[in-house]
Order: sequence, then structure tokens, then C-alpha cells
Amino acid sequence: MSQYTAPTQDMLFLLNEIAGLPTIKQLPEYQEVSEDLVSAILEASASFCQDVLSPLNPVGDQQGVKVEGDKTITPEGFADAYQQYVDNGWPSLPLSVEAGGQGLPELVNTPAMEMVMSANLAFSLCPMLTQGAVKTLSAHGDEFTKKYLIPKMVSGEWTGSMDLTEPQAGSDLSTVKTKAVPEGDAYRIKGQKIFISWGDHDMAENMVHLVLARLPDAPAGTRGISLFAVPKYLVNEDGSLGELNDIKTVSVEEKLGQHGSPTCVLAYGDNGGALGYLVGAPHRGLACMFTMMNHARINVGMQGLGLAERAYQQGSAYAEERVQGGQAIINYPDVKRMVMLMGSGCSAMRAMIYQAMGLADMAEADDADTAAQADKRLQLLTPIVKSWCTDITQEITSLNIQVHGGMGFVEETGAAQHYRDARILPIYEGTNAIQANDFAQRKFFADEGKELFSLLSDIEAGLQAECDNADIQKAANRIKQAVTTARQCAEDMLQHNAKGGDFRESACYFLNIFAYNVAAGLLFQKAVAAYQQQKKYGAEFYEEQKENLSFFTQHYLTRTDSLVAAVKAIIEA
Amino acid sequence: MSQYTAPTQDMLFLLNEIAGLPTIKQLPEYQEVSEDLVSAILEASASFCQDVLSPLNPVGDQQGVKVEGDKTITPEGFADAYQQYVDNGWPSLPLSVEAGGQGLPELVNTPAMEMVMSANLAFSLCPMLTQGAVKTLSAHGDEFTKKYLIPKMVSGEWTGSMDLTEPQAGSDLSTVKTKAVPEGDAYRIKGQKIFISWGDHDMAENMVHLVLARLPDAPAGTRGISLFAVPKYLVNEDGSLGELNDIKTVSVEEKLGQHGSPTCVLAYGDNGGALGYLVGAPHRGLACMFTMMNHARINVGMQGLGLAERAYQQGSAYAEERVQGGQAIINYPDVKRMVMLMGSGCSAMRAMIYQAMGLADMAEADDADTAAQADKRLQLLTPIVKSWCTDITQEITSLNIQVHGGMGFVEETGAAQHYRDARILPIYEGTNAIQANDFAQRKFFADEGKELFSLLSDIEAGLQAECDNADIQKAANRIKQAVTTARQCAEDMLQHNAKGGDFRESACYFLNIFAYNVAAGLLFQKAVAAYQQQKKYGAEFYEEQKENLSFFTQHYLTRTDSLVAAVKAIIEA
Repeated sequence: MSQYTAPTQDMLFLLNEIAGLPTIKQLPEYQEVSEDLVSAILEASASFCQDVLSPLNPVGDQQGVKVEGDKTITPEGFADAYQQYVDNGWPSLPLSVEAGGQGLPELVNTPAMEMVMSANLAFSLCPMLTQGAVKTLSAHGDEFTKKYLIPKMVSGEWTGSMDLTEPQAGSDLSTVKTKAVPEGDAYRIKGQKIFISWGDHDMAENMVHLVLARLPDAPAGTRGISLFAVPKYLVNEDGSLGELNDIKTVSVEEKLGQHGSPTCVLAYGDNGGALGYLVGAPHRGLACMFTMMNHARINVGMQGLGLAERAYQQGSAYAEERVQGGQAIINYPDVKRMVMLMGSGCSAMRAMIYQAMGLADMAEADDADTAAQADKRLQLLTPIVKSWCTDITQEITSLNIQVHGGMGFVEETGAAQHYRDARILPIYEGTNAIQANDFAQRKFFADEGKELFSLLSDIEAGLQAECDNADIQKAANRIKQAVTTARQCAEDMLQHNAKGGDFRESACYFLNIFAYNVAAGLLFQKAVAAYQQQKKYGAEFYEEQKENLSFFTQHYLTRTDSLVAAVKAIIEA
Repeated sequence: MSQYTAPTQDMLFLLNEIAGLPTIKQLPEYQEVSEDLVSAILEASASFCQDVLSPLNPVGDQQGVKVEGDKTITPEGFADAYQQYVDNGWPSLPLSVEAGGQGLPELVNTPAMEMVMSANLAFSLCPMLTQGAVKTLSAHGDEFTKKYLIPKMVSGEWTGSMDLTEPQAGSDLSTVKTKAVPEGDAYRIKGQKIFISWGDHDMAENMVHLVLARLPDAPAGTRGISLFAVPKYLVNEDGSLGELNDIKTVSVEEKLGQHGSPTCVLAYGDNGGALGYLVGAPHRGLACMFTMMNHARINVGMQGLGLAERAYQQGSAYAEERVQGGQAIINYPDVKRMVMLMGSGCSAMRAMIYQAMGLADMAEADDADTAAQADKRLQLLTPIVKSWCTDITQEITSLNIQVHGGMGFVEETGAAQHYRDARILPIYEGTNAIQANDFAQRKFFADEGKELFSLLSDIEAGLQAECDNADIQKAANRIKQAVTTARQCAEDMLQHNAKGGDFRESACYFLNIFAYNVAAGLLFQKAVAAYQQQKKYGAEFYEEQKENLSFFTQHYLTRTDSLVAAVKAIIEA
């Protein structure tokens, strides 16, 4: 079983040289964020994740979640670990000071969250969902919510969950049937929700469900859905815990992976109705959920990175150690290829995700232009991050099994767990086809391609960076060519759409063309920054960036040739 | 949970129109193989696989194999099903009449075996390995083996297993350490073997292990390994069962998939040595194993097809049935794309595998030229079949999960089992990198490219077939272009190799370029034959072939652009 080592050097490098922490630190609210503070946070997080969460990862997989009576029991050690996580203050890191949080930039929370995801993905869902719920409640919650619910969730004493899906309402939420009937200032909720991650558990004394439901007068479709905060235990006037709300855990799913994370079927209102509080305006529930949608989607991309990094570390270590034919198998060119696919893939994903998180911070800047510009780029990158990173994670966790040979198929090795855990990522938080449609329709056609063309120009402009190395220049030429081809494909797609052509059959391919270009552009930036800052980050680090860049342009970026050819063949058919 | 329906129409069509059954039936030994006989075999096999083996597939997955004392217990119903399988005469179908078999062509056994693999992959390994063992023993076994072991294995009363791997000897068998010491006419075997599929079980009264071991005077390396037949129960002079041989099942692996198939760690000779019989000449064990290597590799490709077909049937049915946004999800272009990727992929794999099995029959023809020509083509296609089909199976079983959305991640659905079962296929029977190296080195460079160029010319010649349909012609043009590009890449690779360049980093990509071209060429043949024989196979079948062809050339064949670009980038680096 592999253990996890946090890649803190790459993380710090990305924060400082690629994702814009120096600029973010100049925003008024982040003036106190020093380099020392950031380093200290990364170190503390690394030690907690490596020592506490990582060893629990196989335990969670093997034991899974049990339902005993009306209790949902998490795997041995999970509740203790969560208590430590709360005691150390990790939940509140990126949450606003007004809400009782530590008010640090999202970008600084990013490496901490990535480490939790690498160390124990099933566990990580719980704090990730709670942070998302806090953001939604902070933006749309009423006084009661702000006074009684948010503070306990910010500290992590209580957790949060998102209760969207119903048996008939999966990707299409317009058919949500759960009902909410007004009762005084509150509502009575009745209905069934499925696929609720961390929908019940024994790690915290209480939890708050964010539930989509319909008011009695609701119009049909998505514009008739409201959002409610529904605590597991009711909250008394003095803020103390009251009686159990009318929510029952019907069952917990047996899943392919993420066995340590309870995926619940919940029955609301078997005994008259669960008491809930309206969040935001009536019928505007989906809009409120969208508050956290970008954030959640980038986080799922980061779950992919977390698993992929863990798989990469395991595969790479095994390849160095396993001897066949009188030498370590890393010396066989195909094994080396697989390890490099894993390593350069992780490097690119991390750059992409950190960049997006930096944009998320800038999108909150006081200066409206700065904020709008960052938000626009973030909107464009979000479906790319979610879709591309989770797809690449399928490859990387699979390559880890392949590197292990027969041992990879044996559960004891642990490679299989990462592979199994990963398989939900391209599905939840909007399937990757939904991401591709969002990218094409809302982020490309609706904008007449402006932001995408601007992104491509930025990649090209980045390639002008001065760097006196032949390999890096060779890679730059390959990227330049790929960007030119990608731009042509985008123009063809605009024309196709203008003529009323359907883009949806090729949408996934279309998104990936730009994903590979963005990734290559970022690896170029990484190589150049490492070259320029060799003194700070060392010659070995620079060497690694250069190798990742060259390899990526040969093995990954070349995939855009086929994607462009497929888009062309499909739209011409 | 999905049930399985054997695609008998496609199978019969392939036998008769693509894989050469009419020619094979003209060989002297197969004159009695009538069309009615073949249809009857397919029908009987379909009914047994659908009704008996398919319902046991999830049972095997859930129960797995248990070791109790010195017994290895297979899942409930497996032993009964195996007894029926033997009683119905399925094991002996393709085995020679001299060995007591039914002497039918491999090609006729192929659909029957594919159905077993689709219905219950874990189960199918047992008869598949037994047939391989019989072939090896028939070619190299001595009188004792032929008299006492082979007949029981041909009937299926006893089963066979291949005991190659040891902890230090995986892909590299040169380091096999198991020892064989002469004792009278026989040998005493001592050592440990791992990853032995069906290495012990309770489905038959006896089994015969084919074991690689070293004689006392053996030279180091692969030329010092001998092959032994080692029965689980010894065989008395009168052929009756004697005492238990000195083989102990140390453990059975807990695996990611194929839970119904016991993967054993076996200890030979804890009590003095297991009695074994030399097969073939001393030190020539690997050469004897190679007798069945091609056959086994094509069979693993067929395991891929079996799983992929099952996943396709499940995903396609779900897409027709599941409603979101007021319509069945098959109406969403991306879902349709995924279902077509699955369907056209299966169609291509089946054509490729059946063609290879037809060549295997022709390679046994009395006419030496005919046999040599068929064998040469078969040798070239074997690594393509094993590698490409098992890779595509990873995709197709994954697409099935994606089509199911969240339900695909829930084990109860059954989609996850196919995905898990599939993951070993690119690893065992020679990893797919080993296939790619074999393809490049032994099948391409060693031959100076002759057979590959001849294959490409055959694909091109096939495209001349008369067919008055615009879509088919459009596809033909795409294939023509792809073949031209592939040929150029092969020429570049020959030059690169002549200059001493290393091909191994790009070998997997190189193999796949030709795999996609072969597949596209076969789908073209299928479409044209269905067009020409519309009366026999119907308009719907023709329509389906045409759609598969168009789709494949747009979505799959375009992948060769990237593969060629990657090969170029790597060999130019």
C-alpha cells in the first residue's frame, strides 16, 4: 500500500509563479498573507494529510459505511480524524471573516484541499461539500441561517450536504418533485433524494442539508425550484440542538469506489415533513445553487488531480523498485512513457486548477473591471478543468495499474482503489458531456468566441517569453502550431453553429482541443519560470519542468490532431 | 442487472462473408461442416450461455472464490454449470478427432467461445485454458500424456492451467526458479507459482497443470526452462485417479474483477516434490508454450470483445429506456455518440477476431503455401488483436458506466462489474506493451515491413469493391487517406530503425495506427457484403453496418492522425 507525500514544491511554485498569488496578496483583504504563512500552512497540511488521513484511505475502502438502526457509521478512524481536522481549523481556512472564517484566499486553501483529496478522497468530500454549502448560505441565507447555521458549519462542527438528485431527476433537475409547504416562517419538506454524498454520518453532531424542492405555487420546470436549508437536528431559539428532524436515511449505496463516503438515499417527511428554511428567493433555488457551481466543478477537477497525483506517486515508486530483465522497469521505454504520462499529466492539471483558483480570488476583487475579466476567464476555464482533469484521471489511475502489471489487479496493492474511486468524477457535478455543452454553448457561442480567442492569443503571447533553451523552443513551436489549428477549428465551429448546425456530437472533442492547448501553454510557462528562477527552485526542478513540457507536447498535445479531425469529419457529415 | 443476448446474426454473417468459412469448409477435414450444423451450434450455445451462464455472472462477482481447508470453492452454481457444459460437449468442439475431439474448425468454435466470455468471463477462463493446454500437450506430449491426460481434458472432465509466473518472474520468464529433479521416468517439481488462473477449483475431479521449471543441468535464461504436465491427483497405471500430488493452494487473490475465477498462489513440493511429466524436449519449455501463445492472445482479445459486447448491450438498452428532459437519453447526441462508440467498436473487434480465427484454421491447411501465407498474416494480426481489442474494451466498459450516469457507479447496476473484470485484459498473456514490441520487432522490422505493407495493400484493394452508396464511398475515401498516412509512418519507422533509432517509446502508438486501419477496412468489407447480400441479411442489418462504418471512420479512424503525429514527434526528438 502506497503512502502519500505532498508535492509542496510544485504547489508553492504554482502559487507564486503561475497562479498569481503575488497579485492576490495586493488585494486589500489579503495584505497579511505572507510567504511564511503560506509555507507554514502547506507544511502543516502536508503533515496532517500524510500522517493522519492517508493511512485511513485503504481502511475506508475496505470497511465502507454501515447503517445500523438509524445510525450511519463511517469507517474506523474517520470520526477521530475529522475531529482533528476541525480542531486544527482547516474547515474555515478560505471562509470569509464575516462568516467566522480565516479569510484566506481560495488559492491558499487550494493546496491544502488538494492534499486532503490525495490523502483520502472519500473523506475530502465532506469538508469540500461543507465549504460549498457555507458559500451558498453566506450569499443567500437569511438572518436565522447566518446566526445559527453558518458559524457551526464554518468551524466544521456541523457539516453540509447538497440534496439535488431524485430518481427521475438526475442531469435534468427540472423534474424535481420534492415538496415544500409553508408553515409559519419555515417550510415542511416531503420527498425522496438519492445520491446524497455525506447525506448522513457520525463525524459531527449535526449537519445542514441544502435541499431543492417545489413550493405549492411553483411553476413547472427549473424556474419553479426553491432551495431550503434543512438541519438534521433542529436548532432551538438559543442555538442549542433540538430534536431530530423528519429525515430518514433509507439506505447507503454500495459503490464501485469511494467506499468511505456515505452516498445516501434520504426520505424527507415520512412523519409530517422535515422543517426547512428558505434560502434565497422562492423559485430561485437553482440560481442560488449556481453560486457554488463553478467552485464545485473546479473542486471535482481537483479531486481528479488528487487521485492522479497519488496514483502517479505509487506507479512511479513501483517502476523504480520492480526489477525485470535485470533492471528496474522504469528503464523500459514504455514504462517510462507511462510514468511520464502520469507525471506530466499531473503537472498540467495542477497548473490549470491553481490558475483557475487564482482567478476565483481575482473575480472577487473590488475593482469591477479586474473582477469581471477574471470571472470571464474563470467561466471559460471551469468546464475545461472539470471535464479534462477528470478524464485524464481515468487514464492516470489506469496507467498506474498497467505499470504494476498483474499486481495492479490485486486489491491489496491499492492501485485498484484509486482506479475505482476515480470513476465517478466524470459523472457527478455535471457529466463531462454537460461540461462540453456548457463550454460550447454558454462560454463560446454565446460570447461569439471572444473569450476563447483571447485565451488562445494569451497562450501565444506567453510563448514569446525569453528562454534560451532549444527543447523549450521546440515545444513552443509545437504549441504555436497547435494553437493555430485550434483557432481554425473554433472558427469552423462558429460558422457551423451560425448555419444552424448541431455541435453536440462533437462537443466533448471540441472542449478537449482547448484543454490540451491550455495545459501545454501552462507547462511552457512552468518551464520558463523554472528556468528564470533556477536559483530559487533548483536545477532539478527546472529539468523536470522541461521534460514534462517536451513530453507533453509529444504525447498529449498531438492528440488535438485527431480531435480536430473528428470535429471536422462530424460537422462536415 | 442486464441479461445477455448472443448477436448470432453478426456472428453468422462474419463466418460466412468475412472470415472465410466457405473456404475453410473446402479443406478435407471440414467437408462435413454444413451451414445447418453451424447454425445449430450457435443456437444451442446461445441458449446455454443466455440461460445458464449469464445469470451466474453477478453471483460469481458477489460471492467470489473461497478457500476452506484444502478446498477451493467456486461460487454457487458454477460447478453445476460446468457439468452441463461438459455434458453438452462444448469443451471438445474445436479439438482434433485424434485427441478425441469433435474436430470442428476454430472459426466455428469462435462464436461459441465468445458467447461464454460475454455471458460469464470468469467462468470462461477455465475451458479456454483447458483448450490451450490440450493443444500444447497434443503437440508436445508423450505417450503417457496422450493416453491418460489428454482424453480427460478433451472431454472437459479434467481441466488445465498454465503455471508460468513466479514472484520475481512476471513479464520476464527467464528468471523462473521452480526446480524439476528427475525420478525414474518422471520428475519432482519444487517451487512457487503465482497468478495461476483456475489453478485450483471444485468444478472437476482432476486438473493438469502445465508448469515451467528448470532441470538441474539447465542453462540460465529462457533457454533453460522446461515444461511439465503436473496432475493435481496422480494417475494410476490403469488410468484411475491416485493420490493427491504435492501441490498446495497457498491462497487465492482478492482481485479488482473476475471474482468468480480463482487466481491461485501454488506451492509445489512442500512434501518432497510434486510428480510431473516432461512435455517436449528438455530446456525447450518456452518454445512448447509458444505453440498456444497466438491462440491464447487472440482469445484474450476475444475476452475483450465478450465484455465489450455485454457492456454495449447494457448501455444501449439503458439509453433507450432512461428518460431525462422528456425523452430517452439516446436522443442526446453525446449519449448516441457513446452508444455508437460501443456498438461500432464491438462490430470492428468481432470482425478482426473472427478473421484471425479463420486464418488460424487456414494456417493448418495441407497446402504448405496456403498455410504459410495464412500463418504469416495471423502472426502479424495477433498482437494487434490482443492489444487493440483489450484497450478498446477498457473504453467501452467505461462508456457503459458513463451512459448510466450515477447509476453506473452503483454496484447493483452491474456496469461496474464489466469495467472491473476488463482491467486485467491489457496485462495478462503479455502486456499490451509486449504486444507492441512484438509487433514492431518480430512482425515488422524482422520482415522488413513486407507483410505489413501487403496488409495495407489488401485494405486498399478491398476498398475497390463495388458499392453504389455515397456514405460508403465517403468512408472509403477516408480509409484510403488513412492507409496512405499509415504506410508513410511505417516507412519512416523502418528508416528510423535502420539508423539504430529506438522504437519502443512509440511502439504502442505504432501498433494502434494499423489496428484502426485494419478495423476500418473490415467495417468497410462488412458494409459492402451486407449491401451485396441485403436479401439474405436484411435492410436493417445493412443500415447498421453502414452507420457503424461511417461513425467509425469519423470517431475512431481519425485517432490515427494523433498517433502518427506522436510517433513522428517521438522519433524526431
